[in-house]
Amino acid sequence: MTNDQPPRPSRRGFLKAGGAAVAAGASLGAGLATSQAALAKAPAHSAQNADPQLAVEPFYGPHQGGIVTPQQSHTYVAALDLTTDKRDDVIALLRTWTEAAARLTQGGTAFAMPSGDGGDAGNNQPAPDSGDVLGLGPNGLTITFGFGPGLFTKDGKDRYGLASRRPAALVDLPRFNGDQLVKEKTGGDLYIQACANDAQVAFHAVRQLTRRAYGVATMRWGQAGFLSGPRGQTPRNLMGFKDGTNNPSTAKPELMNQFVWARATDDAPWMEGGTYTVVRRIRITLEHWDNTELGFQEQVFGRHKYSGAPIGSKNEFDAVDLKAEDKDGNPVIPENSHVRLSNQASNNGAQILRRSYSYNEGTNFYIERWPPWRQETEYDAGLIFIAHQSDPRTGFIPINDRLAKFDMMNQFTTPIGSAIFVVPPGAKPGSYVGAGLFEA
Amino acid sequence: MTNDQPPRPSRRGFLKAGGAAVAAGASLGAGLATSQAALAKAPAHSAQNADPQLAVEPFYGPHQGGIVTPQQSHTYVAALDLTTDKRDDVIALLRTWTEAAARLTQGGTAFAMPSGDGGDAGNNQPAPDSGDVLGLGPNGLTITFGFGPGLFTKDGKDRYGLASRRPAALVDLPRFNGDQLVKEKTGGDLYIQACANDAQVAFHAVRQLTRRAYGVATMRWGQAGFLSGPRGQTPRNLMGFKDGTNNPSTAKPELMNQFVWARATDDAPWMEGGTYTVVRRIRITLEHWDNTELGFQEQVFGRHKYSGAPIGSKNEFDAVDLKAEDKDGNPVIPENSHVRLSNQASNNGAQILRRSYSYNEGTNFYIERWPPWRQETEYDAGLIFIAHQSDPRTGFIPINDRLAKFDMMNQFTTPIGSAIFVVPPGAKPGSYVGAGLFEA
Repeated sequence: MTNDQPPRPSRRGFLKAGGAAVAAGASLGAGLATSQAALAKAPAHSAQNADPQLAVEPFYGPHQGGIVTPQQSHTYVAALDLTTDKRDDVIALLRTWTEAAARLTQGGTAFAMPSGDGGDAGNNQPAPDSGDVLGLGPNGLTITFGFGPGLFTKDGKDRYGLASRRPAALVDLPRFNGDQLVKEKTGGDLYIQACANDAQVAFHAVRQLTRRAYGVATMRWGQAGFLSGPRGQTPRNLMGFKDGTNNPSTAKPELMNQFVWARATDDAPWMEGGTYTVVRRIRITLEHWDNTELGFQEQVFGRHKYSGAPIGSKNEFDAVDLKAEDKDGNPVIPENSHVRLSNQASNNGAQILRRSYSYNEGTNFYIERWPPWRQETEYDAGLIFIAHQSDPRTGFIPINDRLAKFDMMNQFTTPIGSAIFVVPPGAKPGSYVGAGLFEA
Repeated sequence: MTNDQPPRPSRRGFLKAGGAAVAAGASLGAGLATSQAALAKAPAHSAQNADPQLAVEPFYGPHQGGIVTPQQSHTYVAALDLTTDKRDDVIALLRTWTEAAARLTQGGTAFAMPSGDGGDAGNNQPAPDSGDVLGLGPNGLTITFGFGPGLFTKDGKDRYGLASRRPAALVDLPRFNGDQLVKEKTGGDLYIQACANDAQVAFHAVRQLTRRAYGVATMRWGQAGFLSGPRGQTPRNLMGFKDGTNNPSTAKPELMNQFVWARATDDAPWMEGGTYTVVRRIRITLEHWDNTELGFQEQVFGRHKYSGAPIGSKNEFDAVDLKAEDKDGNPVIPENSHVRLSNQASNNGAQILRRSYSYNEGTNFYIERWPPWRQETEYDAGLIFIAHQSDPRTGFIPINDRLAKFDMMNQFTTPIGSAIFVVPPGAKPGSYVGAGLFEA
């Protein structure tokens, strides 16, 4: 074996030093020794950083990351079911997750690593970090934790003494028209959403966190996603249309306070700065869509495909004029188009912050739900719809109820998975995500 | 509707012009008007281009791209089954695919697009391109086509008059120890491998090509993959080890000629500059692996984890010394380690060019094949093993036979899918991939 003791491996050190791994290690003890206080003060480079590998997002703060953070190019989202009946186990897990997430987002390993290669004591136990993202850099990683209804009550049982603290806004989602939900891709007691500018960095974070849940919680579902957009432009989803044009602007705090951030309420005084997150796995029959006339696709969306402009307008960010009529007196933007049905003017002013990703999980045999009812091997691909909002009862639920009934797009989409979570505010250094719920 | 006629949408134009889609369109008729001759002469930027979105790989040439091309960060691989009984249909499909691949790799849409948004004739038919990568740039896209055994004979039938032209080297793969192959993820008559520096660009290419196969061939399987590596360093796979260190160097043409490129043979005079490609979907029980001692992981690989050096050495590219012994006279690199069993010295000098990607398809319920035989929801993640070689009878087959029997890594891996293809040489402008097989 080697005679020297290389310093501890770390993500940032490998990156800075470039090709020479040994030299890199030498500079990097520092990255791992970073204190939590230092992490809290780390400069918040934007995800628009010139080098997306080097982007760093803050972990501690009034809000969790990954909600109004400029959207990174990859995600891995997962839900776990709690198997323990001990409240202290849940708190310990959240403390561990918080500590690890603070390290990971700043470019560190999930947990402190023993010194590297060679026959020392660290070799006789599993490494605290799988090592697959060594050298890859922080990549703008954010990690967002949420709680499903099952944390508060499950099968009528108040497992952790939290039943009375369930916020009224954390409702169970109703069944929506067209739902073909698969139980194994639906629900969950705990939510982890990792977003990063690299697929492996996002997956790595969830994988290292869920490892620490053994004996306390088990994996319920996991899901990788990606988002490809030309820099500075609204990205296109797999249907080829720009997705997110009409989001409330994250640059306007008053809109975020109105539509995204929850306030402290009598039933959830700990929720100031939190949010509610809905995650839906929506398969799209891309084979069917691709063979649909361009003009019909535009009617479905209510937007022009290439410019992203509302039908009848020229530019993407032109206001959606729902009152415009053609020469026969029919609406220019169809009544059952996606953009009209989801517009705030059709929903009593309600808005939600969509932060969705595409997914692409190979192929399966499907029987299409709409004509031409083909039966064939098709893509298992579509949208991981993710929406954040201050209250789902006035946000996603009424908006989606209308869409599920009337949206022409439903001919091409099938909701397969669904979940709702309460996302607590960000943690303070030394504390943990969800402390307000458990400690108050 | 809009009164003006925006120019045709294109990938490169949107990119160059940045945020303003309308202005962008104006500069871009040129991209689509590019002649095939011009495409053939396009400068071959390397995948190491400072901006990976702008990288362009040549399409025409003596070899197909995606074999010795510096590995891009994403792939989508797919296999189709031919359903037609007409030889001319197959030729027409290959001509269409060749033309589209030439356009796509140079940053164009798959087929010429009608003019854009607005009520012109183009709106009354499906768009020739789904549009989901408009503005994303070429991203170093390569598209590689291959033929499975079923093109030559299927169920004993010589469907296209090609049975006598099947190269002897295109053998059916034997069953390997541990194989748990799923029929729907195995085999295929036609192979498409798209590699790019963007997930959506790779998928888009396969999706636009397979659309054109309707009525001639159906999708058999498709699979997305990714590769995350620090720039200029050997990337790590999901097991956290560097993967590909011992590949024959693509910078050495003599090694490529010896191990990768096929020669014209009596039975396949058209194969000069082609290769044979094996694709395997190998699931890895990451949960099991992550809880395995670091020292044991290193014994399994025969390498140190962090440095990538062979056990007993200090640097990644140190020669693998299979003769080294410890003080007790036992081999320093274990007999059943991956690096020893796969080394050319253990395989009569045979080498193959591995160009693998990781895959990550969410979660499923699994019963583990090895102790502790857990039954639980686990990651459906692992390796899309891709290897190119001049002859699989002296390449993958004997090497993998030994690995399948003895490799300690088998405790953590399960081959789920498997396929072999003959990959013909590159096309000449005006011709098509595989012309030598059909036209001679």
